[in-house]
Amino acid sequence: MSEKRVYFFGDGQADGQAELKNLLGGKGANLAEMTRLGIPVPPGFTITTAECTIYQQTGAMSEALKAEVRQAMARVEAVMRKTFADPADPLLFSVRSGARVSMPGMMDTVLNLGLNERTVAGLAKKTGNERFAYDSYRRLIHMYGDVVMGVDSEHFEEAIDALKARRRVKLDTDLDAGDLRELCAAYLDIVARQSGRPFPDDPWEQLWGGVVAVFRSWGVPRAVEYRRIHRIPEDWGTAVNVQAMVYGNLGQTSATGVAFTRDPSTGENRFYGEFLVNAQGEDVVAGIRTPQQINRAGRDSLPASHEARTLPTMEEVMPALYGELAAIRDRLERHYRNMQDIEFTIQENRLWMLQTRNGKRTGMAAIRIACDLEREGLVDAKRALLLVEPDHLDQLLHDQIDPKARLDILASGLPASPGAAQGAIMFNAEDAVAAANRGQRVVLVRRETSPEDIAGMNKAQGILTSRGGMTSHAAVVARGMGKPCVAGCGDVQVDAAKKLMTVAGRQFREGDTITLDGTTGAVIAGAPALVPPSLDDPNLSRLMGWADRFRRLKVRTNADTPHDARQARKFGAQGIGLCRTEHMFFGEDRIRRMRQMILAGDETARRAALEHIRPLQQADFEGIFAAMDGLPVTVRLLDPPLHEFLPQGAREIEELAGDLGVSVADIERKVEALHEQNPMLGHRGCRLGLTFPEIYEVQVEAIIGAALVQRSRGVDVRPEIMIPLVGARRELVEMRKLCVETAARVMAAKGAEVAYLVGTMIEVPRAALTADQIAEAADFFSFGTNDLTQMTFGFSRDDIATFLPVYLAKGLLPTDPFQQLDQTGVGQLVEMAVAKGRAVNPQLHLGICGEHGGDPASIGFCHRVGLDYVSCSPFRVPIARLAAAQIAIREELGG
Amino acid sequence: MSEKRVYFFGDGQADGQAELKNLLGGKGANLAEMTRLGIPVPPGFTITTAECTIYQQTGAMSEALKAEVRQAMARVEAVMRKTFADPADPLLFSVRSGARVSMPGMMDTVLNLGLNERTVAGLAKKTGNERFAYDSYRRLIHMYGDVVMGVDSEHFEEAIDALKARRRVKLDTDLDAGDLRELCAAYLDIVARQSGRPFPDDPWEQLWGGVVAVFRSWGVPRAVEYRRIHRIPEDWGTAVNVQAMVYGNLGQTSATGVAFTRDPSTGENRFYGEFLVNAQGEDVVAGIRTPQQINRAGRDSLPASHEARTLPTMEEVMPALYGELAAIRDRLERHYRNMQDIEFTIQENRLWMLQTRNGKRTGMAAIRIACDLEREGLVDAKRALLLVEPDHLDQLLHDQIDPKARLDILASGLPASPGAAQGAIMFNAEDAVAAANRGQRVVLVRRETSPEDIAGMNKAQGILTSRGGMTSHAAVVARGMGKPCVAGCGDVQVDAAKKLMTVAGRQFREGDTITLDGTTGAVIAGAPALVPPSLDDPNLSRLMGWADRFRRLKVRTNADTPHDARQARKFGAQGIGLCRTEHMFFGEDRIRRMRQMILAGDETARRAALEHIRPLQQADFEGIFAAMDGLPVTVRLLDPPLHEFLPQGAREIEELAGDLGVSVADIERKVEALHEQNPMLGHRGCRLGLTFPEIYEVQVEAIIGAALVQRSRGVDVRPEIMIPLVGARRELVEMRKLCVETAARVMAAKGAEVAYLVGTMIEVPRAALTADQIAEAADFFSFGTNDLTQMTFGFSRDDIATFLPVYLAKGLLPTDPFQQLDQTGVGQLVEMAVAKGRAVNPQLHLGICGEHGGDPASIGFCHRVGLDYVSCSPFRVPIARLAAAQIAIREELGG
Repeated sequence: MSEKRVYFFGDGQADGQAELKNLLGGKGANLAEMTRLGIPVPPGFTITTAECTIYQQTGAMSEALKAEVRQAMARVEAVMRKTFADPADPLLFSVRSGARVSMPGMMDTVLNLGLNERTVAGLAKKTGNERFAYDSYRRLIHMYGDVVMGVDSEHFEEAIDALKARRRVKLDTDLDAGDLRELCAAYLDIVARQSGRPFPDDPWEQLWGGVVAVFRSWGVPRAVEYRRIHRIPEDWGTAVNVQAMVYGNLGQTSATGVAFTRDPSTGENRFYGEFLVNAQGEDVVAGIRTPQQINRAGRDSLPASHEARTLPTMEEVMPALYGELAAIRDRLERHYRNMQDIEFTIQENRLWMLQTRNGKRTGMAAIRIACDLEREGLVDAKRALLLVEPDHLDQLLHDQIDPKARLDILASGLPASPGAAQGAIMFNAEDAVAAANRGQRVVLVRRETSPEDIAGMNKAQGILTSRGGMTSHAAVVARGMGKPCVAGCGDVQVDAAKKLMTVAGRQFREGDTITLDGTTGAVIAGAPALVPPSLDDPNLSRLMGWADRFRRLKVRTNADTPHDARQARKFGAQGIGLCRTEHMFFGEDRIRRMRQMILAGDETARRAALEHIRPLQQADFEGIFAAMDGLPVTVRLLDPPLHEFLPQGAREIEELAGDLGVSVADIERKVEALHEQNPMLGHRGCRLGLTFPEIYEVQVEAIIGAALVQRSRGVDVRPEIMIPLVGARRELVEMRKLCVETAARVMAAKGAEVAYLVGTMIEVPRAALTADQIAEAADFFSFGTNDLTQMTFGFSRDDIATFLPVYLAKGLLPTDPFQQLDQTGVGQLVEMAVAKGRAVNPQLHLGICGEHGGDPASIGFCHRVGLDYVSCSPFRVPIARLAAAQIAIREELGG
Repeated sequence: MSEKRVYFFGDGQADGQAELKNLLGGKGANLAEMTRLGIPVPPGFTITTAECTIYQQTGAMSEALKAEVRQAMARVEAVMRKTFADPADPLLFSVRSGARVSMPGMMDTVLNLGLNERTVAGLAKKTGNERFAYDSYRRLIHMYGDVVMGVDSEHFEEAIDALKARRRVKLDTDLDAGDLRELCAAYLDIVARQSGRPFPDDPWEQLWGGVVAVFRSWGVPRAVEYRRIHRIPEDWGTAVNVQAMVYGNLGQTSATGVAFTRDPSTGENRFYGEFLVNAQGEDVVAGIRTPQQINRAGRDSLPASHEARTLPTMEEVMPALYGELAAIRDRLERHYRNMQDIEFTIQENRLWMLQTRNGKRTGMAAIRIACDLEREGLVDAKRALLLVEPDHLDQLLHDQIDPKARLDILASGLPASPGAAQGAIMFNAEDAVAAANRGQRVVLVRRETSPEDIAGMNKAQGILTSRGGMTSHAAVVARGMGKPCVAGCGDVQVDAAKKLMTVAGRQFREGDTITLDGTTGAVIAGAPALVPPSLDDPNLSRLMGWADRFRRLKVRTNADTPHDARQARKFGAQGIGLCRTEHMFFGEDRIRRMRQMILAGDETARRAALEHIRPLQQADFEGIFAAMDGLPVTVRLLDPPLHEFLPQGAREIEELAGDLGVSVADIERKVEALHEQNPMLGHRGCRLGLTFPEIYEVQVEAIIGAALVQRSRGVDVRPEIMIPLVGARRELVEMRKLCVETAARVMAAKGAEVAYLVGTMIEVPRAALTADQIAEAADFFSFGTNDLTQMTFGFSRDDIATFLPVYLAKGLLPTDPFQQLDQTGVGQLVEMAVAKGRAVNPQLHLGICGEHGGDPASIGFCHRVGLDYVSCSPFRVPIARLAAAQIAIREELGG
C-alpha cells in the first residue's frame, strides 16, 4: 500500500484515479478521475481510507497526515487563486466521507468550513450577498455543532422555529440577512451551552474537527448497521474528501442538480435528472421545493398531475449549460462504460461536477442497461454480465410491493425469502389448507414451523414466524418453495391457541389481512398494491445465455417433488443436487406406516410397515426422474431423527394409539425413548441406515425400481444415491455395500440394469478431515454446508436468534455464516476435503447442496476451490447461473 | 512387511523371534524365541497375521501359502523323524490362534489333527495305549466338528452322556477303550448328520480346515466383543500356530501344567503353578480334577481346608523335571525381564514348553514385580515403569469387590467410574442427602443425572443410571469425584415417582441394598464383601517417583472445589487445568439469585442479582487458590446455557414465582424463551459472556478479588482465566478486553496487583481451524476435547447410546471417541491448532482438559503433539503421571 496519505485533484491534474477506489473511496477516486478527464471539478484532496483505519486504532490524526493536508491545501489555494478562510475573499471547504462502496446517507458531511465572524463578513462583502453569507454560516454552525461537537440538532431547529414564529414567517427562505445574522449568534450560544466549548473560530481547527468527525462517523451505529446489512467489512474504512465549496444558491444564474445517465427504474436510454435554480444540493434531496426536470423528455414522462410538469426544464432555461452537462454525461458513460449517478452545481453560470458513480438501479433496469450497453458497443458480453447483480435477478423472480404504495408497517423480521405476499392470517397448517381450498389467499403465521406444517406452507402465499433465523425451517422451506417469508420477527406475539397475533400494540385475528415483504422483512397491515415479476424479458434470456456460455460451474437445484423439479428446470437447473426424502415418509398415506415402523418391536415388523411405503416412494421417484430426463438426480436417503415422525401432543398420541391398536403408554414410552438432548447431533443420517438398514434398503429399492421403470419408458435416468452425515470411512463402506447389494437384487429381479452412483454428503467436520479415506468409497461428495457450518461453529441454526444478532451488531462475525459461507473456517474444511478427496479419487465429482449454493459470494468460493456444481433452490437457479458466470469472468479478467 | 508367510521353529532353530510379535502373534513369536534359547519346544510353524488379513479379504488360503506350509511341515517331520499322519507312527498336530496381544479363550483351537480310522489304529499300536488313541480321536472329531464344521457341541455331549448312562459311569475317564471307539463312531455320525458332510479323513484336508477355522475365529462375535472392550484394532489379525502334539496323558510319567514365574496376585517372588499327572492341558484349565501345586511353598500357602494341601507337589513326585522347569523359569525371567505365564507338558518323562508370555497380574502385583525386578537388576527404572499398566493404578485407587465373594449379579451397564460402592437405594438427590445425613450409606439410582443432582451424587457411595454413556453427566461427574458409577444400564427400569427399580424381573425399593462394580459395570444385589485400596505402598511411591522423573508432560487436575483440589494435590496434580464454575451458581444460597438474574428485565437488575453471588464466589476461589498455593489454577468462566438454572417442573416454578414475587406465567415464558433445540450448540460459553457481559465481569471480579486476598496472606496465586467456546478471534479479543479491564478495576480499587493469564478452550472445530488468529489474543489454549469430539463427529454425548454400541460392535469406529481421543479426525484439529497457535505465539501454553486427559493412549498423543500438560480428574492423576512417563520412555527407547 502506498505511503501517500493525501491525494490532490484540481485543474486537470490529479494524484489519484478511478482504479484507486480502495484507497480513495468511490467518491475521491472518481473526483480524481473526472479531473484527469478535463471535466470541471472543484479542486480539493482526498485523505486515504488507510488513515481512517489508523485513526480507528490510535484515535488521533498524525502530524505527518496534517503536514500532507497543509501541502495539498496550498495546491488548492494555488488553483483557486484564493486563500483558505481569507477574510477578504474566503476560500471555503466541504468535508465529506467516501467509502470504497457507496453508503448513501450513512455518514457525515460538513459544508462551508472556514467561516467565522470575520470571514462571513468578507464573504458577504465579496459576493455582495449578505443573506447568502449568513445563511452559509448558520448552516456551518448547525452542521458542525451537530456532527463534530455532538450538539443535538433539535436545539438548532427550536431556535430557528422560534425566530420564524417571532417574524411570523413559515419558510427558512423568508428570513432575511438580519434574521440570519441573529440566528448565527443564537446558534453560537447553543453550541457553547450544550457542548460546554465554544464553536471554533480557527478555520484549521474547524478543518481538523471535520476530518476527525468523518473518521468517527465510520463507527456510528447506523453506519455499522448498514455495513452489517450490506456485508461490508469493518476494516475498509472511509476516505475523507476535502473540496473547495461551490454554490448553487448565488442567484438565478446558479443551480444544483442530480441526474442518472439512464433511467434507473426502467433502464431506458434517456438522460434523467432533476435540478433547482438558486439552491444547494441538499435542497434537491430534502424535497422542500419541488425539483424541476433537466429535460423535456423527462418532464413529458411525468404523470399528468405532477407539479413539475408546470415547471421549466434546464434544457429550456440554461440551454448552453444543459448542453455542456449532456456532453459530460456522454463522456462519463463512455469512460465508465456504465450508467452513472451524477451531482452537479452551477455557480454563476459555471458548471461544476461534484460526483459521479455507478448508479443504483432496479433489477429490470440493470438487465436492460447491460444489454443496451452491449448493443451500443460500450461493453462486450462479459462486461455486460458484470453490470447485473445477482440480487437484481432475485427482484425479478418475485411479486414486489409497489414502490409507490403507502405502507402501514407493523414490525420488521428477517428477510428470509424474497417477494411480497398478502392474504388472510391463519394460525395453523390445517386452517391454512382449508381456507386455501375455499379459494382464500392466506398467510401462515406461526411461532415457528415444523415438517408437519408443510401442507399449510405450501397452500399459503407467504409465511411469518416469530422465532428462528434465516435458515430456520420456515426460511429454508419457504425459499425452497420460492415463497415469501419473514422469519424470526420477535415483535410479533403469536398465540396459536387463541388465534391471536399481537404486534405494535395491535391485535390481529384469523382472517385479518396482512402483507409480508420477504425482500425487506417488513410485516405490513392490510393489502398494499403488488407488482408482478416479468420473466419473459428477451433481455433476460440474452443475459442468461451469456451466463451459461461463460460459467464453468454447473448449477443444479434442491428439489423434492416433480413440481419443483420442473420449475427448476425452467429456470435452467442442470439436475437435482439434493432431493430430500423426508416428505416421502410424511404424506398422509405414509406417516401412519412410518409410525407403525418406528413403534415396531423388531426388524420383521419394521420391514412389513416399510413394504407399504415403498410403492408410494417409487411413484415419487418416477415423477422426479421423468421431470429430470437426461439430467442427474441426487437422492439423499432419510436424514432426520425418527422422533420427528412421532406425534408429540396428547391428543395425537391417543389417536395414533387407537389407530394402530397399541397403548398410549407404549407410544409415550417410545416418544420418551427417542427423545434427544441435541437431535442435530443425534441418531440421524446414516446412523439410521446403519442401525435400521431396512429403511435405507426400501429407499434404494424404490429409487432403483423407479429408475428401471422410467428407463423402460425411454427416459434417460441418472440416479445418484447420497448417504447423509458420514463421518468415518467405514460408515460409507457399509452403506455403499447396502446400496450395491440392494440395487443388484432389484435389477436381478427385474432383469434389467441401470447405472447409478453412490456418494456422500460432507457435512460433519470429521468427514472433511478424513476425506481421503472417505473418497475411497465415494463416487461423489456433496458439501452440506448448512450442517457443516453448524458443527464447525457449534451453532444450532434453530438457537442462534438469541446471540447471532448481537454478534453481527458487534462485528464479532463479518456476516451470518448460514447466509454466506465462512471461507476462513468452514471454507478451510471444504478446501481440505476437495484436495484430499481428489488426491485419492481424481474422478470424484464435487458439489455443494447447502443453502450457500444460492449465495453469490459463496458461489465464487465454490468456483475457486474447484467444485463441479452448486445446487440451490429453484428460484435461485438463475441467480446462481449469473454468479457462476461472473466469478469465471472476473477470474479471467483478473478482477 | 516380509513376504514370508510361514515361520518354522524346532530343535534349536527358528525363523522367527520375540521381536516379530506383530507378524507371528505373541504365542508364535515366543515359541520361536524359546526354541532359539535352546528350551525344549515341540517343533512346528507359524502362519503370519498378514495371511489372516488377506483371508478376511479374499475368504481363501492362497496356493502360495499352502506351498510354504508343506515346506515347513517337511522340516518338522525331519526334526521329529516321523511323518504327518503316518499310519504306522502318526505325527499329529495342534492348530492354535495367536494374536499380537493375548485374547484368552477368545479364539479357537483344534488338537490331534492327523487322526483318522487308519492313523488312530497306528497310534494305539505305537503307544500301546488304545484308550489314549481313541480318546484323542474322539476329542479331534468333537473339536473339529464344533470349530471347523459348525456342529453344535451339545450333540457330542449328549452322545457321551448317553453312553455314560448306559455304562452307568460318571466320569469320562471311567469309559474304556471300547467305549471310546464306539463313541468315535457315534461322533462321526453326528458330524455327517448335523453338517451334511462327512468328517474329513484326509489329514491335509483336516489341516487346511483347522487353519481356516482359526482365521475365521478372528471374526466371531465374542472375539469382536473382546477387541471392542480392549480396544484392539480389527485389522491386526491373528497368526496360526501349527505344532507337533505332545501328550501329558500317556501315564504316570506324563503330566501337564501352567505356572507363573511370580505370584500374579501379590507379586511375591516365588514360582507359582499347578499341574496334573496323566492329563491334558485342558484338564487343568477346566477344573474337573483338582490340580496339584508345583512346589511345597505353593502348597503351604493354600488355605488349610484346600483339597490340594493333601496332594503331592511336582517338586516331590518329579524332582528332576521340577528342577529343569525351575531352571527354565529363571532363564525365561532373565530373558524376558518380566513375570511369565508358562504352559508345559511332560510326555513320558520329557519336559516340553508349550507357551510363555508376559503374565497378567493385579495392580498390586504389577507394582511389586516392577520394583522387585528393578532391585534385582533385571530392569532399570525406565523399563520397570513400562511393566505397570495405567489400569493397574486405577485398581489400586478404589475399593474393590472381594474377588472371592459370590455375586448375585442383576445386570451389567457401562463401567463408567471404577471401584465398588454399596448402600441403600435412593431415587433422588434430596432423599440421598437426607439419608446420608442420617448416617446411611446410599447408592443414587436415576434414569440420568443433571447438575441439580450434584449434592446427592456427592453424598452417595456410587451412582447407577439407566441411560447415558461413558461420558454422560453421571459418568463424568462420578469420575471427577472418584466415585464408582455404572451408567446406561438399560436393563434397569427406574420409576423415580414410585421409587421403584425393576431389573431382571425383580423389584427394588428405596432402602434396599445394592452394590455397584464400576470397574466391570455389574449391578449386584445385596452387599458382598469389599476390599480397600492400599495407597501407602512404598513400592508405589518409588514407582511414581520414577514417573515424575521421566515424564515431560505436566499433569494437572480438573477440580471445582477446595476439597477436590487438595485431593488431587495429594495424588500429585501440578495445578488445576479446569475449574468449572457452574456449581458456584447452583448452591442453595445462590441459585435463587441466579434465577432472579435470569428473570431480570435489564442489565441493572441483572447486576443487582449478581452482586449477591459475587462475595460467595470470591470465597470459593479463595479456598481453591489456598489449596493450590504455588500452582496454576485455570478457571473456566460460566459455560452452560442459562435454562439449565431454571426450574422445569410446575411445582418448582410455582415456588420460584412465590419466592421472587413474579407471576408463574412470567417464569414459564422465560423457560419457553430460553428453550433450545440443541442446547449443546446454543447460547452458552462465551456467547453468554458476549451477550450478558455482567456475568463474566462478576466472575472476573471474584477471581481477581480472591487472588488479591490470598496474595495478601502470602499465598502464591497463579490464576488463569479461561474463556469457553471461542470460535472466532473477535470473541476472544472482546472477552479478553473485559477480563483485563475488570481486573484492572479490581486491582486499582484494592491498590494491589496480581499476575494472571487469559486464554481459551479450543473446543469448537472452527477454533482449531483459525487457531493462528485466536492465538493472537490468548496466553494459553486448553483443548476441550469432549466438545471438540462432539462437534467434529456430530455426536451428542447424551444421545449416542442408541447408535454408538452398534458402531463399536460393527467396527465402524475402532473405539469410543469420548474415551480415547480420535487421533485420525479430532487429533488432526488438535495438531493443526498446536502448529498454527505456536507459529503465531511461540510462548503459547498448551494443555488438554477434556476427559481424554486421563486416558493413557490419548496422553501419548498429547505428548507427541507437544502439549505442555494434561488435566484429568483427581483420581486419574497418578495414572496420567505414569502414562506420561511411559510415552516419554517409549519415545526414548524407540518403542
